[in-house]
Amino acid sequence: MSVYIDPAVATSLRGFEMPEKLGFGSVMAPVMFRAVCQDGCWSSGELVPYAPLSLDPAAKVLHYAQSCFEGMKAYRTPERGISLFRPERNAARLAHSAERLCMPPVPEALFMEGVRTVTAYCANLVPATSGESLYLRPFLIGTQADLTVSASTSYEFYVIASPSEAYHAGNMRVWVEREDSRAAVGGTGDAKVGGNYAASLLSIARLKKRGYDQSLWLNPGNRQTVDELSGMNFFTVMGGELHTPALNGSILEGVTRDSVIDLARDLGFTVHERAIDIDELLRQVADGTCEEAFACGTAAIISSISVFGDGGESYAVAKAPGLVAERLRQALLDIQEGRGEDRFGWMHPIEPISVD
Amino acid sequence: MSVYIDPAVATSLRGFEMPEKLGFGSVMAPVMFRAVCQDGCWSSGELVPYAPLSLDPAAKVLHYAQSCFEGMKAYRTPERGISLFRPERNAARLAHSAERLCMPPVPEALFMEGVRTVTAYCANLVPATSGESLYLRPFLIGTQADLTVSASTSYEFYVIASPSEAYHAGNMRVWVEREDSRAAVGGTGDAKVGGNYAASLLSIARLKKRGYDQSLWLNPGNRQTVDELSGMNFFTVMGGELHTPALNGSILEGVTRDSVIDLARDLGFTVHERAIDIDELLRQVADGTCEEAFACGTAAIISSISVFGDGGESYAVAKAPGLVAERLRQALLDIQEGRGEDRFGWMHPIEPISVD
Ligand SMILES: Cc1ncc(COP(=O)(O)O)c(C=O)c1O
Ligand SMILES: Cc1ncc(COP(=O)(O)O)c(C=O)c1O
Repeated sequence: MSVYIDPAVATSLRGFEMPEKLGFGSVMAPVMFRAVCQDGCWSSGELVPYAPLSLDPAAKVLHYAQSCFEGMKAYRTPERGISLFRPERNAARLAHSAERLCMPPVPEALFMEGVRTVTAYCANLVPATSGESLYLRPFLIGTQADLTVSASTSYEFYVIASPSEAYHAGNMRVWVEREDSRAAVGGTGDAKVGGNYAASLLSIARLKKRGYDQSLWLNPGNRQTVDELSGMNFFTVMGGELHTPALNGSILEGVTRDSVIDLARDLGFTVHERAIDIDELLRQVADGTCEEAFACGTAAIISSISVFGDGGESYAVAKAPGLVAERLRQALLDIQEGRGEDRFGWMHPIEPISVD
Repeated sequence: MSVYIDPAVATSLRGFEMPEKLGFGSVMAPVMFRAVCQDGCWSSGELVPYAPLSLDPAAKVLHYAQSCFEGMKAYRTPERGISLFRPERNAARLAHSAERLCMPPVPEALFMEGVRTVTAYCANLVPATSGESLYLRPFLIGTQADLTVSASTSYEFYVIASPSEAYHAGNMRVWVEREDSRAAVGGTGDAKVGGNYAASLLSIARLKKRGYDQSLWLNPGNRQTVDELSGMNFFTVMGGELHTPALNGSILEGVTRDSVIDLARDLGFTVHERAIDIDELLRQVADGTCEEAFACGTAAIISSISVFGDGGESYAVAKAPGLVAERLRQALLDIQEGRGEDRFGWMHPIEPISVD
């Protein structure tokens, strides 16, 4: 495959001015990667100026949410230049998400070409401050114009990018969501698909009114064990050991979760992947057995949890931010930002391409 | 409110040629209604030529499935001209769906203006053959360009239309879906939102390979009682009485379901709204206690079910199509198509507007 580079890309990149304040996911890079799939056949990819999509009003994505996406980051490292973090994991997860919604998986080579091309051309937009990065958003949507409930025959794959600050500040107040579910047993919880996020918005709106930051989702089957947060996986520290919910079909398999587990074991921690009963956990928070709790994800990296709210009660975590979370966060960021040795082979270097 | 009519609408309508073969939801009427909502304030509506939407690649609807929709029909009646069927129910349901996804409900007056305007201008496109109609698809999408998981600040409301045949022929073979769920308890099952339909596509693809037409969804909480089909509610006839799953939070409250219940009671039938255990039902189908089964919805009206498939077994329904389903279908169509008296006040007449 060879990427077509639209000649207007150079002008777009040269005309782009980086704003003072980045925020998260709101400043968009001026180029995007695009490929289309018709009846199962993928076109080659192209890099074009960032511009509105033209979608038929009857496009499947608008009515039946046939869409899935990824979130990943390119980091600027002082020694090793620009690098992506474990991009092949995102390629595999997007393929899994696509299959759950009867969409054609984006071939790994095309996915990698997309994220590599966008990162290479946007090298100047990768921020250098620690915690900041170029957030990449690959996504796949069903575009066929047809109102029957059936899989689309045509798809578009995009990679857009956003120079971003870190997503969360830490010391989050999480709310134990006992009523709503983000995804069903036998649903789409282990896929990164739009519907899960739409279903979570109402809970977030409610808990914000109560002074909380994030929903803590329970397993929709038993409504008793912890699954995850809306965009992050969940960990606790007890007796110096790490505990995280085992993957059960309704939890998204986070790349950060996986990396934290590897890193923690490498640092000598014991890590338990198991069912975590919410009532037992709240007791352990209350009596201090649970020393730390944190959430992790690409956007937030590692964010400590300071308070659990449940109905009328709130439970303060003994240490927030805790030392274990801080140590893991630092170890992970050291690898991602190139200060530490890349001893797991996680970093995927990108050669910048200049348009000047 | 007053609708702005784009001058190009007349040209679009005059240039439109009705194809020989309609199908369902694939021929699109050449005009659409549009209104936008910014920070909670609705614009007035406009009727414009049907044309691609321009959406930012970071629009919330594309990533987080912030979208909901309705399906309703305009019928041509010999005596009473063009009429919509119970449109205020669709207005209310769209508002409910919107609230579930933290979207601003479309005000009833704006919704009614949208469906009335599209129907009035498309009066010539309402087919006259029994079973055919102008299918209307109001929908609401979150359009803000921003990659954080949060509710959009801007929305667009559209009404598009499609001259259509009836959706299903009847004698459907339904597959008891024991693994996947379309929506969670505490999820979005009682809202008409894209994510539910995306989640259902894989089941449909699997059962088609086994020679079935539709998934029969079980309740995601108990996985033991019947909820509904992917786009239709479920009924059985036993001992001459009707049974349908009681609304339980994961079932969409169908306008047709509600109308069938009213119509059946009016015709002297007893109707039970209750939990229907799937294993008991399959035994009753096998021994003939369950005489008929059918599904109902706007698109399909009433469609009989001839076979239930479950794992390795299949269960043929005694009467398919059954007399009760046929009688209800005819009574409903007689009202919708103006042959029978509109004794429930369900029909909402529309004055055609000509552009010639
Ligand atoms: C629901 C959910 N859980 C967990 C995560 C964390 O996954 P990752 O570490 O791959 O970013 C995400 C995404 O970021 C998510 O959306
Ligand atoms: C999931 C689901 N159930 C039931 C129905 C039937 O509802 P209505 O009779 O209002 O069309 C629909 C929509 O048509 C649906 O999508």
